Amino acid sequence: MKKHSILFFLCILTLVASCKKEPRVKQIKPENIGVLDPLPSWNDGKTKNDIIAFVKNVTTEGNPDFVPVEDRIATFDNDGTLWSEQPLYAQLRYVLDEIKVLAPEHPEWKTTEPFKSVLEGNVEAVFKSGKEGIVKMGMASSTNIESGAFRESVKKWMVKAKHPRFNRPYNEVIYQPMIELLAYLETNGFTNFIVTGSDIDFMRAWATETYGIPSHRIIGSMVETEYDNTDGKASIIRLKGSVLADRYNGKPIGIYRHIGKKPIFAAGNSDGDLEMLHYTDTNKYPSIKLFVHHTDSVREWAYDRNSPIGGLNEGLDEAIAKNWTIADMKNDWNTIFSFQK
Amino acid sequence: MKKHSILFFLCILTLVASCKKEPRVKQIKPENIGVLDPLPSWNDGKTKNDIIAFVKNVTTEGNPDFVPVEDRIATFDNDGTLWSEQPLYAQLRYVLDEIKVLAPEHPEWKTTEPFKSVLEGNVEAVFKSGKEGIVKMGMASSTNIESGAFRESVKKWMVKAKHPRFNRPYNEVIYQPMIELLAYLETNGFTNFIVTGSDIDFMRAWATETYGIPSHRIIGSMVETEYDNTDGKASIIRLKGSVLADRYNGKPIGIYRHIGKKPIFAAGNSDGDLEMLHYTDTNKYPSIKLFVHHTDSVREWAYDRNSPIGGLNEGLDEAIAKNWTIADMKNDWNTIFSFQK
Repeated sequence: MKKHSILFFLCILTLVASCKKEPRVKQIKPENIGVLDPLPSWNDGKTKNDIIAFVKNVTTEGNPDFVPVEDRIATFDNDGTLWSEQPLYAQLRYVLDEIKVLAPEHPEWKTTEPFKSVLEGNVEAVFKSGKEGIVKMGMASSTNIESGAFRESVKKWMVKAKHPRFNRPYNEVIYQPMIELLAYLETNGFTNFIVTGSDIDFMRAWATETYGIPSHRIIGSMVETEYDNTDGKASIIRLKGSVLADRYNGKPIGIYRHIGKKPIFAAGNSDGDLEMLHYTDTNKYPSIKLFVHHTDSVREWAYDRNSPIGGLNEGLDEAIAKNWTIADMKNDWNTIFSFQK
Repeated sequence: MKKHSILFFLCILTLVASCKKEPRVKQIKPENIGVLDPLPSWNDGKTKNDIIAFVKNVTTEGNPDFVPVEDRIATFDNDGTLWSEQPLYAQLRYVLDEIKVLAPEHPEWKTTEPFKSVLEGNVEAVFKSGKEGIVKMGMASSTNIESGAFRESVKKWMVKAKHPRFNRPYNEVIYQPMIELLAYLETNGFTNFIVTGSDIDFMRAWATETYGIPSHRIIGSMVETEYDNTDGKASIIRLKGSVLADRYNGKPIGIYRHIGKKPIFAAGNSDGDLEMLHYTDTNKYPSIKLFVHHTDSVREWAYDRNSPIGGLNEGLDEAIAKNWTIADMKNDWNTIFSFQK
C-alpha cells in the first residue's frame, strides 16, 4: 500500500512538472481574454489596456471596429523592438566577426580601411568610416556567397557569439513582453510578419526558431541575387548591390512587395520605423501604431532622441501628438528578458 | 398535423439544399485519403496515383520521405497551369483593353506604335512589335499609378471582360483538377504559393478570391515602386522599370525572396517554369515536379513545343527523361472546367 502511495505521489509530481513546461507560444482563446492574462509580462495600465481593447474590438463580429481575419496583418521591426540592438546591431557584430574570419583570404585588408581598423580592433576608427564603410564591410563579408551557405555561417555565429552585456547568445536577448504579444496576436487570427532593416538571409537563419514566424513572413533588406545552376545544385548567389533597404521608405515598400496589404498593427522603436507606422495609420481599418521606448537603463538601456543606434526623435514627437501607443519599457514591462526573472 | 409534416419536409429540403453548397476548398482529413477521393476530377492512373502516394509519404511520420509541415512548400505557375492562357495571356488582354480606355488622355498614341495598331484593332501588327512592344504597352497602361488604384482597375476589368472562347469571366476559366489539387495539398499541411510571370498587383486583384491563396503568398513580376506620403495617404506608386521578371531564372529568385525555401511541389506548364522545377528538384527532400500538358483540343487547347504562348519544349524533353509528373489534360482530367460538367 505504501509503495503504491509513493508511486502515486511520484505520478502527480511528474504531472505537475510536465504542466509547468509551457510552450513559448501560449494558446489563449478569445473568450478567455480577461479571464487568463494574455500579456503577463506587461504591467496593468493604459498601454496594456489599449492593446487588449483593440484586439477584442477587431476580433468581435458586430463590433464597428471588426476586421476580417485575412486583413489582420501585424508587422514588427526586429532590432530594438523584438531584441536588444545595443551596444551594436547584431548583424554589424556578425559582419565585424566575419571579417576577422575571412581575413586570411584577403591579405589586402591589412592595409585597406575600414578592414584594417577592424582587424586591429580599433572600433572607433571603424565607426568613423560611417554608413559607406559599413556597407563596404557588409558587402565584403556577405556577398559572392550562396544564400544557404551564408545562412549556415550566420547559424554558426549565432551559436557561439555572446551578447557583450548579457553574456548570452543574441537570440536569447529577446523581449519577453513582445514574445507574448506575438503569440497573443497570432492566437487572435493575426498574421505576424517581421519587417527589419537587417538582411533577410541573416534573419531567416534564426528568427523562425526564435519567434515562431515562418521564413515567408520574414521581410528584410535584400542584396541582388542571381540564380545559378551550372553545378546542378540550383542555387541563389548573393551579389553586391541592393534590391531593398528595408528601413524608412523601404519598410512600406517591403510590406507592399511581400504582403500586399496595409497592416492594422505595426511595432517599431526608431525613426526608421516611422514610415511603416504612417502606412499602417492610413489603413481603412482601425490600427495600432506601437513604439517600444527604451527607458530602462538598469534592466536594458535608456535612449531615444540622440542615440546613433535606434534613434527615436521625430517618431516620438508624432507618437505623442497623435496618441499612438508607447510601450515604456521601465513602467510597462515587469519582465524584459525571461532570463532576468 | 398535416401542416407540421409539410414544415418538416421543407426543413429537410432546406437541409439537403444547404448540404449541397459545398465550399470550393474541400476539407479532406489525411486518414480519409483512399476512402474519399481527394481529386475527383483526376482520372485514376499513374499521374493521380503518383501525386497521392507522394502526399501520403511526405505526411506520414516515420516514412523515410516524411517532410515536416514547415517545409511542405508548394508553388504554382498561373497562366496555363491554373487557368487558360490561350488565345492570349489574360494580363495582355487587360493591357490592350486598358490602352483603349486610356487613349483619350494620350492623343499621341494615334500615331505611335504599337499603340496605333491597338487602337485600330490590328492585332497582327501589335504582335509584330514583339516583346519590346508588349513591355512598352504594359508600362504605359500600368505604371505611374497608385498600386491600389491599379488593382481596382483590374478588378473592374475582371468583372466585365469575357474570355473570347468560353464567354465567361477569366477567373472562371480555371482548371477544376488544379483547384482540387490546391485544396488537397493545403489540407495536408502544405503552404501553397502562386509564382507567376504576371504582375503581382494584377494577380492580387482577384487570385485570393479565386484560389483561396492570401496575397502574401502570391509572387509575381514586379515593377519599381516608390513610397509617397505627400498627400497623407501613405501609398505605393508603380513606376516604370522592373524589379523582378518572374519567369525562367526569375522564378527561383522570386521564390528565394518571398519564401526563402525550396519547394517540395512545383507545378508549371511551359519552359518559363523549368528553372522553378530545377530549383524544386534539388530540394534535400523528395519532390514532385509537375507539368500540365495541354493535349485537349476539344475541351481546351492542344499545344506544346511550337506555341508562341506557353511553349513547352526543353521542359517536355526533360520531364520525360527524368520521369517527372505530367498531367495530360485529355487523359488525366475527366473535368477541365467546372462549367463544362
